[in-house]
Amino acid sequence: MSAVAAKPGSVSSHASSNDRCFNFSAGPGCLPEEVIQQAQQDLWNIAGSGVGICEHSHRAKVYDKILADAEADCRKIGNIPAAYKILFLTGGATSQNFMVPANLLGQDETADYLTTGYWAEKSAEQAKLYGGVNEAWDGRASKHSYIPSDAEIKYSAKPSYVHMCSNNTIYGTEWRASETDASWRLPKVPAGVPLVCDMSSDLFCRPTDFSKFGLVYAGAQKNIGIAGTTLVVVHEDLLKRNPRELPGMLQYRVHAKDESRHNTPPVFAIYFSGLVFKWILKQGGLDAIFKRNVEKAGLIYDVLDKSSFYKAHARKDSRSLMNITFRTPTAELDDKFVAEAKAQGMDQLKGHRATGGMRASTYNAFPRAGCEALAQFMREFERKNG
Amino acid sequence: MSAVAAKPGSVSSHASSNDRCFNFSAGPGCLPEEVIQQAQQDLWNIAGSGVGICEHSHRAKVYDKILADAEADCRKIGNIPAAYKILFLTGGATSQNFMVPANLLGQDETADYLTTGYWAEKSAEQAKLYGGVNEAWDGRASKHSYIPSDAEIKYSAKPSYVHMCSNNTIYGTEWRASETDASWRLPKVPAGVPLVCDMSSDLFCRPTDFSKFGLVYAGAQKNIGIAGTTLVVVHEDLLKRNPRELPGMLQYRVHAKDESRHNTPPVFAIYFSGLVFKWILKQGGLDAIFKRNVEKAGLIYDVLDKSSFYKAHARKDSRSLMNITFRTPTAELDDKFVAEAKAQGMDQLKGHRATGGMRASTYNAFPRAGCEALAQFMREFERKNG
Repeated sequence: MSAVAAKPGSVSSHASSNDRCFNFSAGPGCLPEEVIQQAQQDLWNIAGSGVGICEHSHRAKVYDKILADAEADCRKIGNIPAAYKILFLTGGATSQNFMVPANLLGQDETADYLTTGYWAEKSAEQAKLYGGVNEAWDGRASKHSYIPSDAEIKYSAKPSYVHMCSNNTIYGTEWRASETDASWRLPKVPAGVPLVCDMSSDLFCRPTDFSKFGLVYAGAQKNIGIAGTTLVVVHEDLLKRNPRELPGMLQYRVHAKDESRHNTPPVFAIYFSGLVFKWILKQGGLDAIFKRNVEKAGLIYDVLDKSSFYKAHARKDSRSLMNITFRTPTAELDDKFVAEAKAQGMDQLKGHRATGGMRASTYNAFPRAGCEALAQFMREFERKNG
Repeated sequence: MSAVAAKPGSVSSHASSNDRCFNFSAGPGCLPEEVIQQAQQDLWNIAGSGVGICEHSHRAKVYDKILADAEADCRKIGNIPAAYKILFLTGGATSQNFMVPANLLGQDETADYLTTGYWAEKSAEQAKLYGGVNEAWDGRASKHSYIPSDAEIKYSAKPSYVHMCSNNTIYGTEWRASETDASWRLPKVPAGVPLVCDMSSDLFCRPTDFSKFGLVYAGAQKNIGIAGTTLVVVHEDLLKRNPRELPGMLQYRVHAKDESRHNTPPVFAIYFSGLVFKWILKQGGLDAIFKRNVEKAGLIYDVLDKSSFYKAHARKDSRSLMNITFRTPTAELDDKFVAEAKAQGMDQLKGHRATGGMRASTYNAFPRAGCEALAQFMREFERKNG
């Protein structure tokens, strides 16, 4: 390697070693390393503009292209029909919990909620501020360990919409076809009723038919970027609903009209999602991503399925590709597991307090090598402590 | 320089040349270069954690310290009394335009607005959704070229609060003591009425007595960081007002109770503001920053004051330290000015369409060398075209 004096802010990416650990965080989650390296460069000077990505006006040409690319690439990845608007908002999925009913639910109407986990509970709670809420399914009794069958769901007579959460981060459950097939199974909602889906923790983890949904939202910090922006994909028919007067910042139609620039947007977070979209396309799109996710999660579920030491929280037909929840026979061993794994470079494996035990989050950007390392560690740990 | 193979994601900061231009953008604005370089490193692996700043859980220890430091440093810089909560929110100052009345204004009450510019107009508009609005000053007739004296302001009988915007980015005006003194002049509001201030474009540009305000808000992307978070400093007495039922995300008291972690916060944007706060302290705090800002803006105002070629938009007693607005005798010369300046490495000098001409934004992080270069260019341009 020749000794070339680097410019300030330049990033050396000629690699010989790696100082990063396997990060199993449930979110904000790990990011593709090549995307981080691109962002390091662009923070200083993007596209030869002489200005860093965070210092460009959101009305300047550099950002025009970032935003246009992010939208086009998102549409391409999801094959999202032209009748859907793609919006980049702020305030997290938590803000969508109230923006959905504020924009879609009349005061005298009822919305149906499929309460499959902690965040689905929160979504239903917020809707009560705006109209009637029917919990068409309530999984609390089973500690949210599975996703209901259609027979178990009790819709109201004329729901304004049906709300679901596709992946339940805390409990490690996901709407899926069967024990052996992790592709989509969607609830059979009443004809003509739009399905609203919180996909914060599994957006773009597998091929998805967006035409089945009226509105999809997702905080970016798990599968499509960093905390700070929320993706909303909404059918233009829903933009015509107008159940109450709202500030512009809370209206989907205003953000749609102003093309995600009603005010100064979170430039860096949207830019970052744009990079992740390009990374997904480079991986081969959702078919390739899905295949890899099934293999990655399979490495860990395989250990669970062959073990009487570990116990999975989720029922097999409802288990998640993104968050794998399990425990050892005792809380003491759980603590030991988490500490020893951390010492071996596997961080953030402690489960949520609601489920206890462990949680391994294996989002799109999480490397297969990390799943292999964890599976190996689990077998060793069982051998020593089982 | 020895040839050491760099780790992936490592950043070389041994500098011999600079590929960045002078960025006069009105916002998002330019950032301190040493802060950008720190962020480049931390994107990859922060504090030896093996995890990048954007990949840490917002409940993890690394982020605990970032948030605690950001709050403590912000309090130190502004000498902000303990009775004020410091919150990091999302949605920009635009969201504060409705959160302020939503949280502070009863439906049958009146708030007084001092309409000194475009954003102040927007603030007043949003408040009308929640209660009565009295425009105690309206600067539209003078094209917002100056800030009113106390004699010109007509308060209502019992305003719920008084709202002001301290610096008007588009028009280049600022609340200041006099032609020769750029320290604060605040409106004399009726006794006991809280003063609410949008400081998005001049927060921390000079020493500020926060005890004079009930609530201060500022989008981060001009003087304290990047687009994606909004600082709110609010007196705890105002958190007791409860004029209507609101979703948790829209309540100041919820964010105060949850210490800016009611949901997943915009981790990187808050982290970045934390770095800028440390940078401000390292510069010597607000006394030193103010002195430098007066000198920087003075270099450009001095050219304007000595010229009959350039015309300033703002009245001398109201001119801003942060945004300097001026024009040449013709729109054609304005265009020529902007193009030639850009060719010489001075970007984003075109004025807002509302004022025309040029706008030089010289926020805290903007280098003195850039002001010197512009002043020199202005003199040359006048000599050639005057």
